[in-house]
Amino acid sequence: MPEARILPRRLLLGPGPSNVHPRVLEAMAQPLLGHLDPIFLAILDEVQDRLRDAFGTQNAFTWPLSATGSAGMEACLVNLLERGDRALIGVSGVFGRRMVDVAERAGAEVVCVEAEWGRPLDEAEMISAIERERPALVALVHAETSTGVRQDPAAIAASAHAAGAFVVLDCVTSLCGIPVELDAWGIDAAYSGTQKCLSCPPGLAPVSFSDRAIERVRGRVTPVQSWFLDVSLLANYYGGERVYHHTAPISAIYGLAEGLRVVAEEGLEKRYHRHASTARELIAGLAPLGFEPLVEAEHRLPMLTTVRLPDSVTERGEAKVRRALLDRHDIEVGAGLGALAGQVWRIGLMGENARSECVDRLLEALRAELG
Amino acid sequence: MPEARILPRRLLLGPGPSNVHPRVLEAMAQPLLGHLDPIFLAILDEVQDRLRDAFGTQNAFTWPLSATGSAGMEACLVNLLERGDRALIGVSGVFGRRMVDVAERAGAEVVCVEAEWGRPLDEAEMISAIERERPALVALVHAETSTGVRQDPAAIAASAHAAGAFVVLDCVTSLCGIPVELDAWGIDAAYSGTQKCLSCPPGLAPVSFSDRAIERVRGRVTPVQSWFLDVSLLANYYGGERVYHHTAPISAIYGLAEGLRVVAEEGLEKRYHRHASTARELIAGLAPLGFEPLVEAEHRLPMLTTVRLPDSVTERGEAKVRRALLDRHDIEVGAGLGALAGQVWRIGLMGENARSECVDRLLEALRAELG
Repeated sequence: MPEARILPRRLLLGPGPSNVHPRVLEAMAQPLLGHLDPIFLAILDEVQDRLRDAFGTQNAFTWPLSATGSAGMEACLVNLLERGDRALIGVSGVFGRRMVDVAERAGAEVVCVEAEWGRPLDEAEMISAIERERPALVALVHAETSTGVRQDPAAIAASAHAAGAFVVLDCVTSLCGIPVELDAWGIDAAYSGTQKCLSCPPGLAPVSFSDRAIERVRGRVTPVQSWFLDVSLLANYYGGERVYHHTAPISAIYGLAEGLRVVAEEGLEKRYHRHASTARELIAGLAPLGFEPLVEAEHRLPMLTTVRLPDSVTERGEAKVRRALLDRHDIEVGAGLGALAGQVWRIGLMGENARSECVDRLLEALRAELG
Repeated sequence: MPEARILPRRLLLGPGPSNVHPRVLEAMAQPLLGHLDPIFLAILDEVQDRLRDAFGTQNAFTWPLSATGSAGMEACLVNLLERGDRALIGVSGVFGRRMVDVAERAGAEVVCVEAEWGRPLDEAEMISAIERERPALVALVHAETSTGVRQDPAAIAASAHAAGAFVVLDCVTSLCGIPVELDAWGIDAAYSGTQKCLSCPPGLAPVSFSDRAIERVRGRVTPVQSWFLDVSLLANYYGGERVYHHTAPISAIYGLAEGLRVVAEEGLEKRYHRHASTARELIAGLAPLGFEPLVEAEHRLPMLTTVRLPDSVTERGEAKVRRALLDRHDIEVGAGLGALAGQVWRIGLMGENARSECVDRLLEALRAELG
């Protein structure tokens, strides 16, 4: 493979993908097994068990959906919503907004609670909206990748359950980087991606549905609008019987299996701690260069830090500085998205990259470019 | 990765996945680039160009969808159908039937033309149904993976166009194994998978939409029901501007890039010829063991041969013999699906596996088990 051999080795400090553990890359290069091969099915069992640990759940139906994180979002919403259902969605960034779009396309009547970008949703406002609107479904984002804000879902989920609603949680950026406790919080359906704190390539969406959510899907009046995402069909393969639905992406699942082994060897607590301490180093190191965090400390995500740009960057043109980091230092950082485009950078220290060495390399490169 | 290092090396002679070229596995183990990295985007350009060659099309909007082949099917149907549209679908196996399910979930009024499993659709019947029903969309399967039948789409597509319908073609198993000529045949949207004659892992769906089809999507009255599959959004990333929609599966695209290079080095004509000649060897070699092809020679697919089972197999139990092939010889063959379950095997000689050595290994193993 001549072209690929000369690919540059980038340090991926954007909002994902993050760099992949070498053992994950090695695992993906293993020869294929069939998707019904008993040895492959044992690997799939292991992946499903380890995903349950990562999600903090006993949900039997926890599996790697054969598409990227956004398809995980769509799977959660289109299975739990029927046309005309009311959905209450918390919007404080791009991914909350995307949920609204997905839910509307599923025919739901959507009510939004909005928060300023860079701030979490107001819990009291969400809870009073739940009590007022009596939605069939409440959806929110645990770790908003467009703003770097952490949202505590427990109180909102409790209120939603008290009102008889199902709760969907976006854990794309949070999984394996900060605690995710679906069962303790009472989440009915959650989704993630593999390319963030799991340090696997993008391509799979870990998803978990509670028994109550599966029961809801099985009791639908109308079929799920998507055949590919219909969990009542997917359960025939991922739920134990292993009946063919579609061909599972073997190599990506090898990679995820290995990525989850790496996580288990480190231990979740230690991994959360590593993310938290590296983020503190980043913020401390950026301060003398004039970068200020967008988000208040108590709501800040450790794996994704949004920073306001100093004059030294805006005067040079923020896109030009990012391009110089890439071309001259092989470092990728993320641009601002949506309402924050041009105003912030998003610096990811996710999974394997949540290490002091990565912070040091970035600071050194910034000093060289801006000094 | 201790567990993976001891994975058996299977010869995958089922309906897919097929064995992957070592260069593809090596490519997937390359370190990641970001999905907006200019070097990754150049690889994506190359993939899109080569997919156009494979599909026999100039369609600008030809790209690897970030999910498996079945999602490609869903993408073609949900973009081109609005609720209440009439769809005429040819059904002669599991995958035609799946199209019906997908189209109905999209709210279409579906009319089926059926053929006996193991036979192609009757062209005259399809054409008269098109003239009678005046559908908005006609869909059919080029290579029916459940039966091993090849369907010639040219006359049906011409009739559909004359009636003002859009034409969708399933090329999951045909692409890079028999000629696919979307432009010559007048196909508006087609999809495939990577795990068949491309000899890449499962996980991506190569898809192509004609300009006319894209125009139809842009002129819809209602939004596409799926956000993840909406080609009017996907076109912002895959259509040239490279605006973020979802995170592209980097490693899988590296693998596909390398798989397409392998195809180009061999040349499509030579590859088609290799598939055809190896299939003849298989059928000749199986005859003395009592296996008879299900499909008449003129409609038979070369990359997937369905064979009726001799008494020597059914007396032992067909599933037991398949399991013995797997456990004692590391060879996977496919079971019958749907109406053909228990009656046939599906033997794939796809991509890298369309070689005499693979036929010889299978025949030797069968002689050992049945002799």
